[in-house]
Amino acid sequence: MGRLLVSCPDRPGIVAALTTVLAGAGANIIESQQHSTDPSGGRFFLRLEFVLEGFSDHIDALRAEIATVAERFAMDWRMTHPSDIQRMAIFVSRFDHALQELLWRSHARDLAVDIRLIASNHPDLEPLAKTFGIPFHHVPSVPGERELSEAVLLDLVRDEVDVIVLARYMQILTPQFLRAFGGPIINIHHSFLPAFVGADPYRAAFERGVKLIGATAHYVTDELDAGPIIDQDVHRVDHAHSIEDLRRVGRLVERNVLARAVAWHLDDRVLVHANKTIVFPGP
Amino acid sequence: MGRLLVSCPDRPGIVAALTTVLAGAGANIIESQQHSTDPSGGRFFLRLEFVLEGFSDHIDALRAEIATVAERFAMDWRMTHPSDIQRMAIFVSRFDHALQELLWRSHARDLAVDIRLIASNHPDLEPLAKTFGIPFHHVPSVPGERELSEAVLLDLVRDEVDVIVLARYMQILTPQFLRAFGGPIINIHHSFLPAFVGADPYRAAFERGVKLIGATAHYVTDELDAGPIIDQDVHRVDHAHSIEDLRRVGRLVERNVLARAVAWHLDDRVLVHANKTIVFPGP
Amino acid sequence: MGRLLVSCPDRPGIVAALTTVLAGAGANIIESQQHSTDPSGGRFFLRLEFVLEGFSDHIDALRAEIATVAERFAMDWRMTHPSDIQRMAIFVSRFDHALQELLWRSHARDLAVDIRLIASNHPDLEPLAKTFGIPFHHVPSVPGERELSEAVLLDLVRDEVDVIVLARYMQILTPQFLRAFGGPIINIHHSFLPAFVGADPYRAAFERGVKLIGATAHYVTDELDAGPIIDQDVHRVDHAHSIEDLRRVGRLVERNVLARAVAWHLDDRVLVHANKTIVFPGP
Amino acid sequence: MGRLLVSCPDRPGIVAALTTVLAGAGANIIESQQHSTDPSGGRFFLRLEFVLEGFSDHIDALRAEIATVAERFAMDWRMTHPSDIQRMAIFVSRFDHALQELLWRSHARDLAVDIRLIASNHPDLEPLAKTFGIPFHHVPSVPGERELSEAVLLDLVRDEVDVIVLARYMQILTPQFLRAFGGPIINIHHSFLPAFVGADPYRAAFERGVKLIGATAHYVTDELDAGPIIDQDVHRVDHAHSIEDLRRVGRLVERNVLARAVAWHLDDRVLVHANKTIVFPGP
Repeated sequence: MGRLLVSCPDRPGIVAALTTVLAGAGANIIESQQHSTDPSGGRFFLRLEFVLEGFSDHIDALRAEIATVAERFAMDWRMTHPSDIQRMAIFVSRFDHALQELLWRSHARDLAVDIRLIASNHPDLEPLAKTFGIPFHHVPSVPGERELSEAVLLDLVRDEVDVIVLARYMQILTPQFLRAFGGPIINIHHSFLPAFVGADPYRAAFERGVKLIGATAHYVTDELDAGPIIDQDVHRVDHAHSIEDLRRVGRLVERNVLARAVAWHLDDRVLVHANKTIVFPGP
Repeated sequence: MGRLLVSCPDRPGIVAALTTVLAGAGANIIESQQHSTDPSGGRFFLRLEFVLEGFSDHIDALRAEIATVAERFAMDWRMTHPSDIQRMAIFVSRFDHALQELLWRSHARDLAVDIRLIASNHPDLEPLAKTFGIPFHHVPSVPGERELSEAVLLDLVRDEVDVIVLARYMQILTPQFLRAFGGPIINIHHSFLPAFVGADPYRAAFERGVKLIGATAHYVTDELDAGPIIDQDVHRVDHAHSIEDLRRVGRLVERNVLARAVAWHLDDRVLVHANKTIVFPGP
Repeated sequence: MGRLLVSCPDRPGIVAALTTVLAGAGANIIESQQHSTDPSGGRFFLRLEFVLEGFSDHIDALRAEIATVAERFAMDWRMTHPSDIQRMAIFVSRFDHALQELLWRSHARDLAVDIRLIASNHPDLEPLAKTFGIPFHHVPSVPGERELSEAVLLDLVRDEVDVIVLARYMQILTPQFLRAFGGPIINIHHSFLPAFVGADPYRAAFERGVKLIGATAHYVTDELDAGPIIDQDVHRVDHAHSIEDLRRVGRLVERNVLARAVAWHLDDRVLVHANKTIVFPGP
Repeated sequence: MGRLLVSCPDRPGIVAALTTVLAGAGANIIESQQHSTDPSGGRFFLRLEFVLEGFSDHIDALRAEIATVAERFAMDWRMTHPSDIQRMAIFVSRFDHALQELLWRSHARDLAVDIRLIASNHPDLEPLAKTFGIPFHHVPSVPGERELSEAVLLDLVRDEVDVIVLARYMQILTPQFLRAFGGPIINIHHSFLPAFVGADPYRAAFERGVKLIGATAHYVTDELDAGPIIDQDVHRVDHAHSIEDLRRVGRLVERNVLARAVAWHLDDRVLVHANKTIVFPGP
């Protein structure tokens, strides 16, 4: 099974050109999803899944043919092979619920991922990491020495992982770190963004008296809490919920939203365009 | 059937005192809900529904006894009688969906209410009002003459209705009007407050790329979009939704959230405290 | 804008062949969804939406070219033109909520449909039909003379409408009627099928003490309550809900599920295969 | 903090009598919920939470006073003390997701419970039990010798635990076991009961083509899959979900529904009456 991800200026003939190449190689397309921001002059996004016997043997030839089409249509594109399991790092602080959920889904094979390491500014979750046999790195955050701890983190992840997940990591990564790492970073924010940006959103939600508690999984960008949203969900609450109750309910929403967003990312279902995501959902 | 609504400083003995009075009168409590902001020094809220044969004959005596208890506990309280159907005015502009939903539910007897009038700054919805036999008043909003149009509206509602519902009324009521009317005013805001306050929230939601579209029913206060929230709900959307699609989905959420909030208000299920609501839900 | 719907035995090359024809005609595909019951030997389903300038002028040539491809792949296929608004009949009894919802969405242009007639075994809803200017036919159901009333109904719909919607029509259509009409018939069942098939499902749900009330929109087949399911939804209830409360909540679920199923049907988003549906969702 | 649970024939004066006793003892009621199956001649259910300084010292006197009231109104009643943490046994087979969820929530103190043991007819989940430091008992199910294995189980639980949770335990407990244990047993059924009773409900759901996958937590009774329902929930699925996908989605619904039902049970929020539950929800 292979996946082809494409984005390019929209115009007639894109799908025909690509599927003709795939058909010529004997591939059978089993999933196809597309989106255009505007059929006249907008940008076109495509995700194809296909089965192709002897994919490994044909992959280089197929890449060459697609490259030719890609040039004609000015495509950004990427083709992945079923054995390309993504390598992931998880950054956490003291809360374990989001980490737990990711570890369990990975263990249950609901997430096809290779969790290479867990890094934390606190030592608390090392036992949990050990239970699942994942290397744990305690990288303390010394006030005023953010540069140092980020240098350590960077050594751990650069060229070692494809994606970083912030599973309630209570530190802000600097633009320098984002650029140096270069890959996607997924964060779970504990509110229904853009409501309650910033610190302690459950307190803010409690004080505003909202009737739904939300969580938002998004890609991290330079601007705090403003990156492209991958997924959001909410849970009903009422006046009887204390701030602590909201936090407990929030933990449930957070871990489910984050796990879903990570699953979609790992399945190459999320494309980013102009600070928004195009998410092609799967079963 | 009667309803008793009470709020007072919390301390032991409140429920016992009130239920003893009701039991003494032969009333059987069929629904009881309460909330305390803090059992030590907080405020206590209670809603009781009871059946009492010959309620009309006993109501004055009962009121007198409750008044005695109320004085002892420094209670704010209110007792309503089953025949106390609330009188409502609906203010609209051009959108008809929220109005439609209220009219249907009233017609289907899902809402026990006496809709006395519909007022609008546009003439468009007069035929709809006529279909349901409700008086319609066209009160144009002349720029710079807000005072005049509000004077007309005030004449229509003062002492004539118990509650005003803004069913997508695209005008801001002045603090002067709120004070002059004096009663509760329910608004439906077309976003998941506090996200996207202000005008054109669907455009803002589209631009931010949110994955859920929400609506918020709240009481109107002097501060725009900041009054106590009665209910909220959301609907899932994705990248394929244009702004117009978001508006269409939003209409569905808006009319359902507003209708639910109005139903709870009419059943005396909503109490306000410190810019938040306590909502005692019913079947 | 055109739509192409295809089903055929799955094998490589189908998408390439069709999209090549469309690209050759200058069409730009703006939505594409597909499903295969099994990439090896299963059945393949495809829905394409495309824009094509001067579609009306090219439609015959395009049909001819697609017919050639269709023959090669043994396709069932159908191409619709934007001006092909479907003609619909609605059958009702005494409940008005499902009918109301369809009429309002049609009126608000949320449903692109031409409602040609409303038929009922009771006269009650004639005024509602009149409000929206739709012809109303009272076709009483005389016990033992089902044949007669179905003959009248058949005269109304045969060759006159493309689809019939049963909006809480409390009569069972005979297999003879289904065959004689020949087109799709959508029903709303007032339970979460297959739970509570048969009559009075709300009473059954009340007695079983379920915590969610559901509704199911499905195509009508010879076997009662067993046709292909188009959509389902539920609403949370609890012990405080009487049977009458369940019915009220159910009305909300019913009208929303039915309206959504009808919208998908009208947009050619529902394909039937082996007593199940493939639903390609849209915004 | 104490809790008082009461059920008795409904008639005026019940709440007054009980709250007068509590007020006399200096208790402050912080949560009160009630239900009557019928105010005239039905059964009345009440749950009170109260704070009372020096509760432990006053508990015997309070019990004596309540016993007097209870006799007058023919009450079934129960008063629990904050230190009364319930003791629980979990029975599992090979699936770990429902067990995982309970262990996590207990570990995170979202569930106030003392998990005394885990028993399984398979040895697979012993390592997981060990991670959380819970005794694990492998009690194989030998065909034809159900009596023997149930005798072992009974020895483990009788007088040792207050409640048994079947967290996807794929064995049917005999009526003899139920009677011998005597306490409540909570099961999670992997469908939206009463749909798809019996074995392999996900296959049945797949074949029927349902659009929502559900799970049901219920008390176990002699009649398989027919005990009082505590909670249910659903998750949306579509034609693209294989049976295996339905199982994966189902695991999510199952573990959340079970955990919620167990939490409510442990908080004394679930009362059983005539094969239905009354659930008084909390924050």
